[in-house]
Amino acid sequence: MLKLFYTPGTCSLASHIALEEAGAAYEVHRVDFSKAEQTKPDYLSINPKGRVPALVTDRGILTETPPILAYIAQSFPKARLAPLDDPFEFARLQSFVSYLCSTVHVAHAHARRAGRWADDPAAQEAMKAKVPQNMGDCFALIERTMFAGPFVLGDSYSIADPYLFTIASWLESDGVDPARFPRILDHRNRMGERQAVAKVLAAVQA
Amino acid sequence: MLKLFYTPGTCSLASHIALEEAGAAYEVHRVDFSKAEQTKPDYLSINPKGRVPALVTDRGILTETPPILAYIAQSFPKARLAPLDDPFEFARLQSFVSYLCSTVHVAHAHARRAGRWADDPAAQEAMKAKVPQNMGDCFALIERTMFAGPFVLGDSYSIADPYLFTIASWLESDGVDPARFPRILDHRNRMGERQAVAKVLAAVQA
Ligand SMILES: N[C@@H](CCC(=O)N[C@@H](CS)C(=O)NCC(=O)O)C(=O)O
Ligand SMILES: N[C@@H](CCC(=O)N[C@@H](CS)C(=O)NCC(=O)O)C(=O)O
Repeated sequence: MLKLFYTPGTCSLASHIALEEAGAAYEVHRVDFSKAEQTKPDYLSINPKGRVPALVTDRGILTETPPILAYIAQSFPKARLAPLDDPFEFARLQSFVSYLCSTVHVAHAHARRAGRWADDPAAQEAMKAKVPQNMGDCFALIERTMFAGPFVLGDSYSIADPYLFTIASWLESDGVDPARFPRILDHRNRMGERQAVAKVLAAVQA
Repeated sequence: MLKLFYTPGTCSLASHIALEEAGAAYEVHRVDFSKAEQTKPDYLSINPKGRVPALVTDRGILTETPPILAYIAQSFPKARLAPLDDPFEFARLQSFVSYLCSTVHVAHAHARRAGRWADDPAAQEAMKAKVPQNMGDCFALIERTMFAGPFVLGDSYSIADPYLFTIASWLESDGVDPARFPRILDHRNRMGERQAVAKVLAAVQA
């Protein structure tokens, strides 16, 4: 059975929701950041990078949100979570997902994980101070040029939707007013009403 | 015909080499960073993010290295640049590619593009100072846990190889001695001898 290593409040939520939407049989294992479990040998034997998510499959372990999401979509084609038969549309989906991963998530990480990129506490404060601007700029670009609506790709729900939902749920704590992005905020509200999303949120907050 | 927007010395090299290895018919357009062309309206109409690479196809424009690489592999299946028929192996490939994009490339960017993440010049210097350590740590992890050899995935060449080659070529300028990573250095040397790589390097340096 698939097994997802997750931590509440992190990007692992996207993969968790995708598993639920796919109708997959899966179990979850919580990695406790308050005990720094992600840095301990047990977890490093799962993911040597010391990050969540990690997805254990019967073929091996996958890490990184974009390939985990794509793997779920490809493994459960009946759930139609990606345009699997059209390389261009699939790449358009992955382009959105890759931007979230390489730029938006990274912009967010400069608030709480600035120590990754500089040792000096003053430099870490300077990074933190710029997070609202960077997250705001990223979401302005998404709202204006990338988000088709009503879902990320247009009429079809896909793996990009739980990922956008996950990162958009960080806006307030990153000092950005989501009301600046009415289409994204509407998407976030509609996502919150989906059965799969409500079920996963209830499970991780339990 | 496919058209790649590229800049010498950047991550666009990976997509450029992949096009050549695929045997694709393509043309290239150079984006001149010394004239800040990536920030001008003409280029922003191609990629509103103001970055290279961008790949213009007859269906639309793709950005972000991971989906461009996957699109090339899927569009030219005879070149066998990815394990297209095996979702797990495809995800394993994408996991490597996603790590390069979201973590290793980002670690590198803190040297010359620190201004993205903090306005204070002292903070930018502090980020720059940590680049050798972060790039060294990333490559130590790749050498030890991710690189199968002789190619990234093992015996089969894939789109991950030109991407690793591209980022490994930044090690010296990032203050890291590549001799610390003998398997990656050997890969980099063998990559440099490939006909497609030599042809692309000659073209971009012309
Ligand atoms: N590129 C990775 C990033 C994973 C990542 O950074 N996860 C964070 C949580 S959102 C984490 O595990 N942080 C733990 C730490 O930094 O110690 C992905 O997309 O999965
Ligand atoms: N996540 C993107 C990153 C693209 C990127 O940052 N490209 C750099 C060159 S390596 C760039 O265009 N920089 C121009 C700038 O920052 O103005 C990808 O993988 O394609």
